[in-house]
Amino acid sequence: MMQRTSFKEEDCPIARGLEHVGEWWTMLILRDSFQGKTRFDEFQRRLNIAPNMLTRRLRALVASGLLEQRTVEPRGRRQAYFLTDRGRDFWPVLVALQHWAGRHFMDGGKPMVVVDRAGGLTVEPLLAERGTGRPISVDTHRFAAGPGASKRLDAYLEG
Amino acid sequence: MMQRTSFKEEDCPIARGLEHVGEWWTMLILRDSFQGKTRFDEFQRRLNIAPNMLTRRLRALVASGLLEQRTVEPRGRRQAYFLTDRGRDFWPVLVALQHWAGRHFMDGGKPMVVVDRAGGLTVEPLLAERGTGRPISVDTHRFAAGPGASKRLDAYLEG
Repeated sequence: MMQRTSFKEEDCPIARGLEHVGEWWTMLILRDSFQGKTRFDEFQRRLNIAPNMLTRRLRALVASGLLEQRTVEPRGRRQAYFLTDRGRDFWPVLVALQHWAGRHFMDGGKPMVVVDRAGGLTVEPLLAERGTGRPISVDTHRFAAGPGASKRLDAYLEG
Repeated sequence: MMQRTSFKEEDCPIARGLEHVGEWWTMLILRDSFQGKTRFDEFQRRLNIAPNMLTRRLRALVASGLLEQRTVEPRGRRQAYFLTDRGRDFWPVLVALQHWAGRHFMDGGKPMVVVDRAGGLTVEPLLAERGTGRPISVDTHRFAAGPGASKRLDAYLEG
């Protein structure tokens, strides 16, 4: 795709991550996977997406290692798509996105919340420092070059 | 755009949020805004994006209320783009995305980290429950219908 080939910032993890999840529909397919959907027709019903587009997106997610394709019916007739560890690890991004959008773009009561599976209580997600539990905000934290930064990324982040 | 008009899930905050940040380049422009970039040429230099595309994306971000356009040079000759509160509130999504992609797609040392502005110490981001500090994971938590859920969203989340 034209947009894809012009998207060259392999040194930045955000850009690299978007190579795998930044296409239209991709994050919604992942959302549905987290809701336990596994079959083509289940994704299609919810997303109302053209079949060839859904096929392409599912293939890309398998190629990126976020979904794993398995045959689930007898005699291998039916394909299903399951989250891999890499895919499951994407969950915080969806939660953060949901929380942000729910706060800024939905009028009225919250349409969607995060609940504790055990007790069913609604919780509010907060990005915090592992260990200290201190909230991470843009006032108190920033991105910085790590040990594996390219010269270009280092100049961008620290310049 | 064709993809946009076929993207109708206004009842889900994730889908609604992606209407505003799901286009190519948009999250990278926001990343640059968080790095203190404000001017057209600053965005362009880093992103290597066609000027008309950058203009469109900046306009969309202003229309979505994530960036605010101000004239900064004398006699109003120069435009600059600053994060609004809504835009600043997007920070946790970028941090979560950066953390996930850094873990799964970057070989070798981490190119990018999150540091405490005060002490410069590297911190590891963790999505937690506000209040209790308990980690939010897909094993222990799930999305659920909130008080403002449409019938369709309720069926999707609870069905």
